[in-house]
Amino acid sequence: MAGGVGSRFWPRSRKALPKQYLSLIGKETLIQTAANRLLSLVPSERIFVVSTLDQKHLLTSQLGWLPTANFLYEPFGKSTAPCIGLSALHIHAQDPEAVMMILPADHLITDTEKFCQVLRNGIEIVREHRDSLVTIGIQPTYAATGYGYIQRGEPVQIKNGKAFKVRAFAEKPNAEIAQQFYVSGEFLWNSGVFIWRAATILNYMEELMPELFEELMKIKSAIGTADYEKVVEKAYKQIRSDSIDYGIMEHASNVLVLEGEFGWSDVGSWEEVYNISEKDPEGNIIKGQPILKDVVNSYIEVSDRPVAVIGVEDLIIVDTSDALLVCKRKDSQDVKWVVEKLKHNGLQKYL
Amino acid sequence: MAGGVGSRFWPRSRKALPKQYLSLIGKETLIQTAANRLLSLVPSERIFVVSTLDQKHLLTSQLGWLPTANFLYEPFGKSTAPCIGLSALHIHAQDPEAVMMILPADHLITDTEKFCQVLRNGIEIVREHRDSLVTIGIQPTYAATGYGYIQRGEPVQIKNGKAFKVRAFAEKPNAEIAQQFYVSGEFLWNSGVFIWRAATILNYMEELMPELFEELMKIKSAIGTADYEKVVEKAYKQIRSDSIDYGIMEHASNVLVLEGEFGWSDVGSWEEVYNISEKDPEGNIIKGQPILKDVVNSYIEVSDRPVAVIGVEDLIIVDTSDALLVCKRKDSQDVKWVVEKLKHNGLQKYL
Repeated sequence: MAGGVGSRFWPRSRKALPKQYLSLIGKETLIQTAANRLLSLVPSERIFVVSTLDQKHLLTSQLGWLPTANFLYEPFGKSTAPCIGLSALHIHAQDPEAVMMILPADHLITDTEKFCQVLRNGIEIVREHRDSLVTIGIQPTYAATGYGYIQRGEPVQIKNGKAFKVRAFAEKPNAEIAQQFYVSGEFLWNSGVFIWRAATILNYMEELMPELFEELMKIKSAIGTADYEKVVEKAYKQIRSDSIDYGIMEHASNVLVLEGEFGWSDVGSWEEVYNISEKDPEGNIIKGQPILKDVVNSYIEVSDRPVAVIGVEDLIIVDTSDALLVCKRKDSQDVKWVVEKLKHNGLQKYL
Repeated sequence: MAGGVGSRFWPRSRKALPKQYLSLIGKETLIQTAANRLLSLVPSERIFVVSTLDQKHLLTSQLGWLPTANFLYEPFGKSTAPCIGLSALHIHAQDPEAVMMILPADHLITDTEKFCQVLRNGIEIVREHRDSLVTIGIQPTYAATGYGYIQRGEPVQIKNGKAFKVRAFAEKPNAEIAQQFYVSGEFLWNSGVFIWRAATILNYMEELMPELFEELMKIKSAIGTADYEKVVEKAYKQIRSDSIDYGIMEHASNVLVLEGEFGWSDVGSWEEVYNISEKDPEGNIIKGQPILKDVVNSYIEVSDRPVAVIGVEDLIIVDTSDALLVCKRKDSQDVKWVVEKLKHNGLQKYL
């Protein structure tokens, strides 16, 4: 899933250059890393990427090694349920027995090995319990308010350890509730990673999201025909924007959660990029060549023009060719607000 | 005197756009304010501006109301002594009895009325004591390390109050010595404002700076001829760079200092601009239209592109079309270092 627009990384991320196509950490872009880390589990011809049409050029330039047919395009983003429905359709058409894993393209995972092991466990579960919906929950490391949560129920023995039944899904909590979740030990971060058979999720959609399913069936009959794009476009005009959590997971029986501990982050803010990345001895992360004096614990990213920074600490400075952000690290969640403000001020070209 | 290059206001001030041509405070540029404040004392046809040839366009565009002949150009800046010598020459040629006042073009004076009264007193002294050199000293308001000092000697009764003999001139002191100066009550800031007869200063130059005087005499004989510019150019290649303080004031007898208290600053740093300027209720000075959230006690000046600033305090942010400064207010003296660094890095076009 590579459709997000990532307004929290303004001014680097833009509508035309979402977060997943940026090298926020390391040299590869997030989507390149996301695709590469699957290669030990899935051959490249079975890796599909769903995105929106306006990202076609970015996708093909960054993941040129994937078969062109594996790029699936939505005419416009409608949250996760339609995106997953569309991909399930295509995968099911190729193999009615196929197990699919759904992974966001813009997350950071530190320990690829452990991550792949959890995915393997998930695949095992789905092979054994054909109708189950498996999701991956992350052991919280702090009382995050930026993630949704999954409440574990009773454990279920599986081949390589254990999974849990899911008691409830919870939206992003406020600080107080996040603290309760964290202390309880029962709540996991919702990673947005899912494993199931394509047939299973389509069945669930038929039952729980019949309007979406109806449109998907129209698309299904157009696959491989000259009308395909036109039909998809028409269907997406009808399709409601719904998340898979809200549309399916919260209502489905048969949901299991696998615990994951593999250094996970959805890289949701500049502050998180700072925390995750390697720092120099002054605690700085410097990209480009700013002129620095007495600068500590800061993230500074500049383009070609001269930038001088003197005597500051705990700052995020991102200077692109046409916009500038100067933000205290602890306030980097507010960057989203800047994008709202720009939109409000009619400055579309800077979004 | 309008020849300075003002590297302490980078990135706004440049070699091609020195500080005196900037509107750092209020709407007028510093040089416009400097010229305007003299109009109650001196008719415009007797206001002369000395600058370097590369500033000709700036000068004529900002002070178009002055007679063209009153712009005197040095081929290159050689500190204050040659600048004052050149203007004394021209003024003396027009009126051998002329009293001249020498004023830097880039200083801030809050109380123009009081300032003009001090100048008037100076003129009175020079009329009475024809050979005296009058300088204006500012009552220090803190232990500044950024100014030179003048040590007062015994008082001299003058028509409208008193002047003082000068005991010594002192270069910019370190913090400890500045503190001693400040506490002593005997030391005044050297404002760089001087009053004397043109003939007097030329006599002093003949005596104390004979090499300079010799070149000035060559220029004198070329005034009004077609060769003038060529002669000036040739003379300035010979002339050494010397300040009037070092070349004359420290060695001359007959030096008097007048105390001034008229809200003076040489506007030497962004921090000083911040301190001098009017602030909004958050303690900010904002030029342009940045997007702000939780910003206090800061100076922010932006151009057209979007700039977002979040959660910062005590910062100076200056974003021009081709360069950026982010600097803690207390460190704004270090901006000069940035310019050195740019020079060192061969980035001439940003100087």
